[in-house]
Amino acid sequence: MAAGGGLRVEQRHGKARVRVGRVWRQGADGSHHFVEWNVSISLLSHCLSSYHRDDNSDIVATDTMKNTVYVKAKECGDRLSVEEFAILLGNHFCSFYPQVYISSSVIHSACYSLKACVCTHLCFLVYCYKVYTAIVNIIEKPWERVCIDGKPHLHGFKLGSENHTVEATVQKSGALTLTSGVAGLALLKTTQSGFEKFVRDKYTILPDTRERMLATEVNASWRYSYESVASIPKKELYFSEKFMEVKKVLMDTFFGPPETGVYSPSVQRTLYLMGSAVLRRFPDVASIHLKMPNIHFLPVNLSTKENPSMVKFKDDVYLPTDEPHGSIEATLSRITSKM
Amino acid sequence: MAAGGGLRVEQRHGKARVRVGRVWRQGADGSHHFVEWNVSISLLSHCLSSYHRDDNSDIVATDTMKNTVYVKAKECGDRLSVEEFAILLGNHFCSFYPQVYISSSVIHSACYSLKACVCTHLCFLVYCYKVYTAIVNIIEKPWERVCIDGKPHLHGFKLGSENHTVEATVQKSGALTLTSGVAGLALLKTTQSGFEKFVRDKYTILPDTRERMLATEVNASWRYSYESVASIPKKELYFSEKFMEVKKVLMDTFFGPPETGVYSPSVQRTLYLMGSAVLRRFPDVASIHLKMPNIHFLPVNLSTKENPSMVKFKDDVYLPTDEPHGSIEATLSRITSKM
Amino acid sequence: MAAGGGLRVEQRHGKARVRVGRVWRQGADGSHHFVEWNVSISLLSHCLSSYHRDDNSDIVATDTMKNTVYVKAKECGDRLSVEEFAILLGNHFCSFYPQVYISSSVIHSACYSLKACVCTHLCFLVYCYKVYTAIVNIIEKPWERVCIDGKPHLHGFKLGSENHTVEATVQKSGALTLTSGVAGLALLKTTQSGFEKFVRDKYTILPDTRERMLATEVNASWRYSYESVASIPKKELYFSEKFMEVKKVLMDTFFGPPETGVYSPSVQRTLYLMGSAVLRRFPDVASIHLKMPNIHFLPVNLSTKENPSMVKFKDDVYLPTDEPHGSIEATLSRITSKM
Amino acid sequence: MAAGGGLRVEQRHGKARVRVGRVWRQGADGSHHFVEWNVSISLLSHCLSSYHRDDNSDIVATDTMKNTVYVKAKECGDRLSVEEFAILLGNHFCSFYPQVYISSSVIHSACYSLKACVCTHLCFLVYCYKVYTAIVNIIEKPWERVCIDGKPHLHGFKLGSENHTVEATVQKSGALTLTSGVAGLALLKTTQSGFEKFVRDKYTILPDTRERMLATEVNASWRYSYESVASIPKKELYFSEKFMEVKKVLMDTFFGPPETGVYSPSVQRTLYLMGSAVLRRFPDVASIHLKMPNIHFLPVNLSTKENPSMVKFKDDVYLPTDEPHGSIEATLSRITSKM
Repeated sequence: MAAGGGLRVEQRHGKARVRVGRVWRQGADGSHHFVEWNVSISLLSHCLSSYHRDDNSDIVATDTMKNTVYVKAKECGDRLSVEEFAILLGNHFCSFYPQVYISSSVIHSACYSLKACVCTHLCFLVYCYKVYTAIVNIIEKPWERVCIDGKPHLHGFKLGSENHTVEATVQKSGALTLTSGVAGLALLKTTQSGFEKFVRDKYTILPDTRERMLATEVNASWRYSYESVASIPKKELYFSEKFMEVKKVLMDTFFGPPETGVYSPSVQRTLYLMGSAVLRRFPDVASIHLKMPNIHFLPVNLSTKENPSMVKFKDDVYLPTDEPHGSIEATLSRITSKM
Repeated sequence: MAAGGGLRVEQRHGKARVRVGRVWRQGADGSHHFVEWNVSISLLSHCLSSYHRDDNSDIVATDTMKNTVYVKAKECGDRLSVEEFAILLGNHFCSFYPQVYISSSVIHSACYSLKACVCTHLCFLVYCYKVYTAIVNIIEKPWERVCIDGKPHLHGFKLGSENHTVEATVQKSGALTLTSGVAGLALLKTTQSGFEKFVRDKYTILPDTRERMLATEVNASWRYSYESVASIPKKELYFSEKFMEVKKVLMDTFFGPPETGVYSPSVQRTLYLMGSAVLRRFPDVASIHLKMPNIHFLPVNLSTKENPSMVKFKDDVYLPTDEPHGSIEATLSRITSKM
Repeated sequence: MAAGGGLRVEQRHGKARVRVGRVWRQGADGSHHFVEWNVSISLLSHCLSSYHRDDNSDIVATDTMKNTVYVKAKECGDRLSVEEFAILLGNHFCSFYPQVYISSSVIHSACYSLKACVCTHLCFLVYCYKVYTAIVNIIEKPWERVCIDGKPHLHGFKLGSENHTVEATVQKSGALTLTSGVAGLALLKTTQSGFEKFVRDKYTILPDTRERMLATEVNASWRYSYESVASIPKKELYFSEKFMEVKKVLMDTFFGPPETGVYSPSVQRTLYLMGSAVLRRFPDVASIHLKMPNIHFLPVNLSTKENPSMVKFKDDVYLPTDEPHGSIEATLSRITSKM
Repeated sequence: MAAGGGLRVEQRHGKARVRVGRVWRQGADGSHHFVEWNVSISLLSHCLSSYHRDDNSDIVATDTMKNTVYVKAKECGDRLSVEEFAILLGNHFCSFYPQVYISSSVIHSACYSLKACVCTHLCFLVYCYKVYTAIVNIIEKPWERVCIDGKPHLHGFKLGSENHTVEATVQKSGALTLTSGVAGLALLKTTQSGFEKFVRDKYTILPDTRERMLATEVNASWRYSYESVASIPKKELYFSEKFMEVKKVLMDTFFGPPETGVYSPSVQRTLYLMGSAVLRRFPDVASIHLKMPNIHFLPVNLSTKENPSMVKFKDDVYLPTDEPHGSIEATLSRITSKM
């Protein structure tokens, strides 16, 4: 959008890292359910008076956003998936803050609302949506119910490994983009991986191999095909189940059958197989982004002139490293998708 | 680009967190110069055979990329800015790896190179650029020359506060996008900040104030207007100096004059003034992105029914918090820019 | 020990964060075993010439220590517990580096080896142990074998939650102190916790409660009673099993029975019960240290004058916080122990 | 102290990570002063009823400790050093919570207060100090006054590099142990460092060198000789100045003269010179602990059979590493000190 002083301003503001824990005690068997969410909200609005002048009348205070998260969490009397909560919040922010009319006199001097007014100088009366888009990101911590002597505990939880993430972008029109993900899924296999016949040039030292460790920390996010708030499945905890199923497909494809595994000729190929397996299996997933750093476990080969083979690598002793790491990422989407 | 199995694949691969230290000992006065860079490289190429088949013949091994960083650092006999090094690396990767011709028979079965071949099934001979874009990100650590008794030390350095970042995107054509930035610039003022007359609704608790702390950690990145590798200024260490100057303008605007400061009616307004000052001052900066979380220092006000005013806030005792924080970000650009 | 210049010097040097991955492929069923260890070594020696003079003749280079870790990992042809590997390393460093004789002339001027020589100025020939104590700390990452469709995978692993730690202190004499631990075991229960009838004074605001969340991140370390390298149990993977069992006792005691749980009147009381359960159950554990921060989940209670009960806490909506946190720690030991 | 069930319990509890910001606006010139402290408190007390029984009557709630920090910060109307604030807090906790008398009947069954009662079963009336020792740790963030155009700003601050730490241990008797420190002081020199003539054995690969980079992150803490709260210097901001001076001596010794530097034959030797310079210079420093990891900058030497010298090291291109690192630490103290 255009701006006073010949500058264009694109902005967002919000509240990040709003943490909320929610307990539901409704189980008929006395069991408690618990989630811990870390919520970040960004609101996009056309009105820029707070940038261009000392005028905060268009700003929803980020403190108010924080309060809203707690009020809404309270209002959710029944368990819901983190995806549903993100949509619910996004929907609230887009619908609660009404459009405001701004007289042309204000516009004249500042001309900060180009998109809404279309014409620049002839406008008489324009209106400006306080909030036209809300972007809600939530990270759900992996609190898992513990088992004591093989029985699930009614109110005891232990932190697991990888996080469940969600990003819901909700428009005032009800249009929705919904992306779920898993973050920090660290996987490793001790064999059935190689890398050979790549480009060799004068900077190349790495030898070809058909036997190496393969370790990565999968960060995956998949976009659902639901394009409006109204169209999402009404089935209870639908997205929570889906999350578990997608994670299972990713892991099954990475590892292969329990006895034989599956050979990985490159991280690229394995990534492709993982992503395409998810798209094949879940018709309501429109695309998937996979970020799979190649976390190197270097073969150890100590040697000196005096001791030509102090430790000679035989696929047994490795040096794990965090840096540098190969970075491999790709987005797979259906060709028919509009993405 | 299109892909076998009805899937579209967008991908990049590279090497992240390649660390390099470089010493130049050329000073006539015996002084050493030193930089420490953390380099991440992403290469984009049309060829997707490594994804679609067990064929790595198009992959530049990330280990080779790492080696290249060291060879190039060695070849830089004279000091250079981190921006120049990023461009130099990007240029290398785009020009060193030549196009390859792929016969139609290969294409026929896989059809993985749609963009290059245009037609899908009638192609006879297509060529495929191994690398058409290189994205190089570097973080320069703030090693600063120490002074001993007021004199600069010839070879002694101490780590300072905020990092210098750069992202150079280089195309095979020589087209360039160059963005410099500062990361982690933590600033705070104890007065001359307020926030009032914002939207009040039923979720609002925050009172209006004209007296509060203002603390933030500025993450800024500005895009230079140079659009090709050939057009960047030849002046030695041009971008290193520019970095210092931009940082100074950002800080001067945030703080205002040393005696009086400048009143901030909102983080939004202060952000806008900082960004527009940079654009006004530096003609070769096309746009600037500022991310300025509002890191809250909450007034402490302990009270109980028995002790109605145990600690009553008088602009003196605060609770600093990391979470939640307000998140305010915006991009300012010249309206004439093509961005 | 005494030192030239009237200064006493107590020192240690070593190598920290030596990472090693070890694969064993010996399984009759074709299964691989894998561990990832992060090893830190500290050596204590009487000789201080490297501190007092420009003389490194007593220093084992930390690079050599690193190499030794890899050589020893290689030499371990059979799986072993992280405790056994720590002892093996400690033993090596204490026995491999022999005592050295130092002529009195050297001693005369420096007198840096008081403990070994006893007399200060009359000594004729003293000997100095290069290394008299080795302290080996290892963190084992929680790589867990994955299951695919209910069957354990032969070579696939996934990162779990909490780390296994060990500290072995080995003396030249063979004396041993062996401590195992679990780090980062995050536990939470949604009820069966309270805190009441504590000291109330004019700084107290916290109300009594019999219903609150209880969350903590247990860091436990327990010292085994084996006092020499020779006396440790020979049973294969003895300490690996013990680690799992101690962790189970800690968790069982924290949570109580799956249906009813157990009421916690304070973190202190719960900590005590956990520690004493371990000591009661495992005769070869001499003492246990438990560090259990009280990670607060604060009841949310938003209210303003206008909205006196915007969100009223009913044991359902909480604000999880990282800071501040209560810090509670204690060591429990048998009265008969020599500790 | 002894305990029911044949267990000995040593315990402490407290509040960690209590953050407080304090502004003083008293400057005659209108200048503001500002500090940000992160306070952790541990209280030691003989009474163990909260561990042995469901009885919290001896516990000072950690929430109360937190409140106390804010009340005390408020009461400090004049600027004071972080050391003084730590002592002030420690003193408060030891003197505010009075001794309590416990009748023998209570003792009889539990016998949890051995130290106070001396006799075990014959005791008639014992008393128990609620708090006999307070340990206060504070980290002061390096907020530094900014200069605008060469003039110090009245209320603007920027975050610098290394933290100032303090640990004050205060006894009910008024006895004091006071330790100040600097954390995260990262230093580097590009020459004037070597390492040679160390122990060579069959695990040694590292070559001798007289030319290498030397980089470290100094963590230093020094104990002052003041042994009671009453004996500390009354001079305003005494310890704040001392902190700056000690840091200067450490840095001056590490780097040597600005033109020539000083040769370091080992980290050990340099550490010793730094510590002894502090002890020599400051009579009221009784001892100093220095932890100086050797953060390696490895010479880069890429070579293959085909390219025997792709990048040959000539003291110019290095690989900086975080792990592994050499760990060197030592405590230097005056021989006459009681430590």
